[in-house]
Amino acid sequence: MKRTYSKKDFPVDQIRRFLEPGPIVLVSSAWKDEQNIMTMGWYTVMEFTPSLIGCMITASNHSFELIKKSKACVINIPTVDLAKEVVGIGNCSGETINKFEQFQLTAQSAGKVKAPMIKECYANFECKVVDTRMLHAYNFFILEVVKAHVPSTPKYPKTMHYRGNGIFMVSGHQLNLRKHFKPQNL
Amino acid sequence: MKRTYSKKDFPVDQIRRFLEPGPIVLVSSAWKDEQNIMTMGWYTVMEFTPSLIGCMITASNHSFELIKKSKACVINIPTVDLAKEVVGIGNCSGETINKFEQFQLTAQSAGKVKAPMIKECYANFECKVVDTRMLHAYNFFILEVVKAHVPSTPKYPKTMHYRGNGIFMVSGHQLNLRKHFKPQNL
Repeated sequence: MKRTYSKKDFPVDQIRRFLEPGPIVLVSSAWKDEQNIMTMGWYTVMEFTPSLIGCMITASNHSFELIKKSKACVINIPTVDLAKEVVGIGNCSGETINKFEQFQLTAQSAGKVKAPMIKECYANFECKVVDTRMLHAYNFFILEVVKAHVPSTPKYPKTMHYRGNGIFMVSGHQLNLRKHFKPQNL
Repeated sequence: MKRTYSKKDFPVDQIRRFLEPGPIVLVSSAWKDEQNIMTMGWYTVMEFTPSLIGCMITASNHSFELIKKSKACVINIPTVDLAKEVVGIGNCSGETINKFEQFQLTAQSAGKVKAPMIKECYANFECKVVDTRMLHAYNFFILEVVKAHVPSTPKYPKTMHYRGNGIFMVSGHQLNLRKHFKPQNL
C-alpha cells in the first residue's frame, strides 16, 4: 500500500510555499480517453495572483500534446517514498504505456480541470494553460493554478530535488528566519 | 571572516546540477558606476545548450533597471552560512544602500560580463540577457549563462530554499538513483 494524504482546499496564492523550494513534480494530463504522467523539474512560480507557474515541457514528450490540446494539467508533488515511481515515470513514454496502471497510482477526479490528480502525491495543483506565446521558441507553457489540494500534515513534505545524472537532493530541515525579515516582506 | 571557495571553470551546459534543485540565489548586477545585489527565488532552467535560465524580477526592484540596461547579471549561489546576508539583501533597496559594503561581500570581476561576482558564494554563473519578449507581461527575463565558476569541493553545497513567510528549507542528503535510470536518460 502506498501512502495517501488527507487533503483540503489550499489558497492558490500561497502555493509558492511548496513549489519555490524546487521539488521534482509529476504532471498529469488527459485528452479524450487518454491520461498520462510526466516528471518535471524545469518550472518556476511567476506570480501570486493570479497564481502563475511557468514550465518547460519538451515537445517530444507525449504529455506535451495532451496539455496543449486540453489546455490543462495537474502539478502533483511526490514525496521521497515515491522515488522509484518518479524515476520510472521519467524513463518511459505514455505513447505505449498507461503510467497510472504501470506504477499503480490512483487517478482522482480534479475539481476544475479534466486532467486527473495523483492521489498518492502530497499535493495537487490544478492548472489551466493561460499563455502559449513562448511555446514555439522554448516549449514554455504559462499555467494558472485554479485549485490547490494540500494536507494539513505533514506541514513540510520530504521532497526530491533533481540534480541530473540520477542524483536527487532530499529536502532537509527548516530554518525559521522570520525575525530577520521586515514585516512587509514576509 | 566569511567562507570563500576555490572555484574553477565549469561547463555551462551542466549548471542544472546546482539550479534545478531550486536554491535561493543572489543576483548581482552593474550599470555605469552602480552595483547591486538582490535575492531571487523565482527562476527555472530552460535549456542545456545554449544554457538558458528564465527568471522573474519585479520591475520595482532596483536591480531590474540595472539588468535591463546592462543586459547582464551574475547568478550567485549562497550557502547556508550566508543566511543572514541573504535575508538582509532581500530586505533593503539598492537605491539607498551599497549592498556589497553593507553586507561585507566581495565584488569580484567576472570574465564575460561587467556585472560583479560575489566571491563568498559557492558558485557564480555569468549571464547575458538574450530575450526580453516576456518582460512587459511578466517581468520575465531569459538569460544565457556564458561562463560558470564552481568549486570542486564540496560537491553538493548546503543551499537554502525559500518557502515564503520567513521559512527556508535547507538542502538535505543525496539520493543516488542512477541504477533505476535508462542510460540515455542520464
